[in-house]
Amino acid sequence: MLNFTYYTPTKVVFGKDTVSKVGELTKAAKATKVLLHYGSERVKKTGLLGEIEKQLDAEGIGYVELGGVVPNPRLSKVYEGIDLCRKEGVDFLLAVGGGSVIDSIKAIGYALADEEQGDVWDFYNYDRTPKACMPIGVVLTIAATGSEMSNSSVITKEEGGVKRGCNTDYARPVWAVMDPTLTMTLPEYQTSCGATDICMHTLERYFSLPGSMEITDSIAEALLRTVMKQAKILMKEPDNYEARAEIMWAGSLSHNGLTGCGSDGGDWACHRLDHELGGLYDVAHGAGLAAIWGTWARYVFDAKPERFAQLATNVLGVTPKETVEATALAGIEAMEQFFRDIKMPVNLRELGVNPTDEEYKLLAEKCFKTTGPLGSMKKLMTEDMEKIYRAAL
Amino acid sequence: MLNFTYYTPTKVVFGKDTVSKVGELTKAAKATKVLLHYGSERVKKTGLLGEIEKQLDAEGIGYVELGGVVPNPRLSKVYEGIDLCRKEGVDFLLAVGGGSVIDSIKAIGYALADEEQGDVWDFYNYDRTPKACMPIGVVLTIAATGSEMSNSSVITKEEGGVKRGCNTDYARPVWAVMDPTLTMTLPEYQTSCGATDICMHTLERYFSLPGSMEITDSIAEALLRTVMKQAKILMKEPDNYEARAEIMWAGSLSHNGLTGCGSDGGDWACHRLDHELGGLYDVAHGAGLAAIWGTWARYVFDAKPERFAQLATNVLGVTPKETVEATALAGIEAMEQFFRDIKMPVNLRELGVNPTDEEYKLLAEKCFKTTGPLGSMKKLMTEDMEKIYRAAL
Repeated sequence: MLNFTYYTPTKVVFGKDTVSKVGELTKAAKATKVLLHYGSERVKKTGLLGEIEKQLDAEGIGYVELGGVVPNPRLSKVYEGIDLCRKEGVDFLLAVGGGSVIDSIKAIGYALADEEQGDVWDFYNYDRTPKACMPIGVVLTIAATGSEMSNSSVITKEEGGVKRGCNTDYARPVWAVMDPTLTMTLPEYQTSCGATDICMHTLERYFSLPGSMEITDSIAEALLRTVMKQAKILMKEPDNYEARAEIMWAGSLSHNGLTGCGSDGGDWACHRLDHELGGLYDVAHGAGLAAIWGTWARYVFDAKPERFAQLATNVLGVTPKETVEATALAGIEAMEQFFRDIKMPVNLRELGVNPTDEEYKLLAEKCFKTTGPLGSMKKLMTEDMEKIYRAAL
Repeated sequence: MLNFTYYTPTKVVFGKDTVSKVGELTKAAKATKVLLHYGSERVKKTGLLGEIEKQLDAEGIGYVELGGVVPNPRLSKVYEGIDLCRKEGVDFLLAVGGGSVIDSIKAIGYALADEEQGDVWDFYNYDRTPKACMPIGVVLTIAATGSEMSNSSVITKEEGGVKRGCNTDYARPVWAVMDPTLTMTLPEYQTSCGATDICMHTLERYFSLPGSMEITDSIAEALLRTVMKQAKILMKEPDNYEARAEIMWAGSLSHNGLTGCGSDGGDWACHRLDHELGGLYDVAHGAGLAAIWGTWARYVFDAKPERFAQLATNVLGVTPKETVEATALAGIEAMEQFFRDIKMPVNLRELGVNPTDEEYKLLAEKCFKTTGPLGSMKKLMTEDMEKIYRAAL
C-alpha cells in the first residue's frame, strides 16, 4: 500500500430535474459573465441550453455562447474560446456536454488564469505547468470521461494530430449537475463507448504493480460489476433511468481518484496508446480503448498474473482454473466478451483502423516521445508499443 | 433511487510520515495564527505536537494551544476555545486528535465565523443555522467518527447532559493529514469503538426505507466487509499497518457521504438513541452504538426484511435461510457476534448502564424532544424509543 492524496472538491448535484439548480449554483460561485460551451446543436434543440439561459437571466448573470466542440476536442476551438472570453470579460465557465466539452473548457480556463498569458498548448506539451484555472461548472449530458470531477483534460492539436493531456487539481470543476435523463437519448454506440471509458478508468488504476489496498480494490470491483451489468441493460432498455443513473455516477467515481487510493496511480498504457490512435485517426476514445485492451493485457499479464486472476474471479465471474495464469487469461477473454456484448471493437480492424508499416512505427514513436517508458505492470519501450499496435490488428 | 448532493472538499493526505506536510498545508491555507486543539497530553508525550509546532515555526506561522478535549466533547471547552481564539486573533483551526477534538474545533469554528456573535449552542439546539465556519485542518490520531471529512459535529452541554449534533458543509475540514501509524498505540477498547462507529456510519445510511442505488450498496458492503475483517486482525496485531490504514480510510469514506448516495440519508435512530445515552451516562460512542444496534434491528427489521437479508448474505456470510425473515435475523445475530469478537457490548448491561424506570422515560422523552419521530425504516415515537431502551438491557 502506497501513500496517496485524495482531493475531490466538486459539488455534485445528482438526479432528476437538477438542471433547475444551475442558476443558483452559478450565482453562488459569484459569476457575473459566463461562457456557455457546448458541442452539437442538440443541446439547443432539446431546450437544455434555453432552460439554462433562462435561469441565468433570472439571476441577472450575463453569458456568451460557444458551440461546436467535437470528440477529441481541438486546440483551435480552445483558442477561439480564449479570445471570446477575454473580449467579453467572462469570469465563469459553464460546460454543457460530455467529456470533450469539459476538457475543452478546462483548457480555456487554464489560459484565462495564466498570468504569463502564454500559449495554453505549453501546458499540454509539458513545457509549463498551470498555476490556476478559472472556475468551472458542468451540466453533464454524457456519462463517460469522468471529467466532471477529474483533474484531467485532453486536447488534440490538429497540426501533426497530437493528442495530449494536462492533469492538475486546479481544473476540477466547482460543481457538476448530473441528471441521468439527459443521457437517455444518446445513441447506442456513444453509450457503449462511455461505459467502456468508465471501465477503463477503473481498470487503469486497478493494474498497478507495486501497491494496492483492499478497500480500494473492493470499490473498484464493485464499480466494474455495476457498470458492466447496467451497460448490458442499456443495450435493451436505453431509457432505463436507474441504469443510466448507476453508470453516470460510476463514471464520476471511476475517475475522481477514489479507485486509485493506495496504488502508484495505475498503468495508463492503454490510454496513452489510444491517445495516439485518436490523434492520428480521430477514433472514438472508448472504442479505441476496447480495441487495444485485450492485446495489452496479454502482453503484460505475466508481470502479475494474480492481479488479472483477481479481476477474473471478483468481477467477471470466472471460475478459478488450474493455474493462476489460466484464470488470468480466461478473465481477459471474458472482458473482451463484455466489449463484444456492448458492440465495441476488440481489435484495430474492428475499430476501422488498418495502419501502414510506417504508421505503426509513427504511432509507437510519437507515444514514446510524449511519455517515455509507459505503464506500471511492465515498462513499455517503443518496440513494445509497436508490437502491441501490430498484435492488436 | 433518490436525488442526492455529494460534496467532499477535504484534501486528504494519507500515509506514512505525512505529518511532515502539515507546515506547507497550513501555509497554503494562508494561516497566520493557528489554534492547536487536542485532547490528552499523549500528543505531547509522543512528540507529535512538537513536530507540528516545529513546522509552523519554520513557516513563520504563529499558534496557541488548547488541550483537554474529552470524549463526548463539552460545550464549556468550546467556549474556552472561542475566547482564546478571539483574544489571540486566530485565523486557522488545527485539530490534532480524533473525532471529539475535530467536533470541538468545528463548534469553535462556527462561533468565530458567526457574524451575529451569538451563543454557539444555538446552532446545536436548532435555534439558528450556521452561515460559515473558520477553515479547519486535521491531523487524525483515531480512526472512528469520520469527522475529518464529514459535515458533522456533536457537542455535549454539561447542564442537563444534552448531546446534540450540527451538520453543515461549512464545517468540512479544508485538509486532513492521515497517518495510520499514529493510531497504532491506541488501546484495544478505543480501536474497537472506532471500528464499530465506522460500521455504524455505513449501516445507518444502508438502512433507508425508500431508496437505494446498486453502486452505493456495493461500496457500502465492501466497506463493511473490510472494516470487520481488519478490526478482527487488529485484535491480534494492533500494530499491523495495513489493517490500521484500511480502517482509517474506511472511517473517512463511511461518513463523507459516499455511502448515502441515492438514499434518503439513512435511518440514524441508533445514533440518536446513543446520543441520549452519551449525554446521560458519558459512555463511549462506539460502545453505545454496539449495545443498542441489535435491539433496534430486531424492532424494525420487518419493515424491510429483504434489506437485512441483503446485509446478511453480502456482508456477513450468512447462507440464505428458508425465509427472508430468517435470513435477516441470522444476519442480525452475525453482526452482534462481530461486536462480541471485537469485545464490544451488545446490550446496555454489558455497556455498564442499568437505567432506572425514571431514566428509561427520560431517555426516550429527551430523544423525542430533540428530533421528533426517529428513523427511516420505522418512524419511532417516544414509546417505541422507551421499548427499545428497555429491550436493550
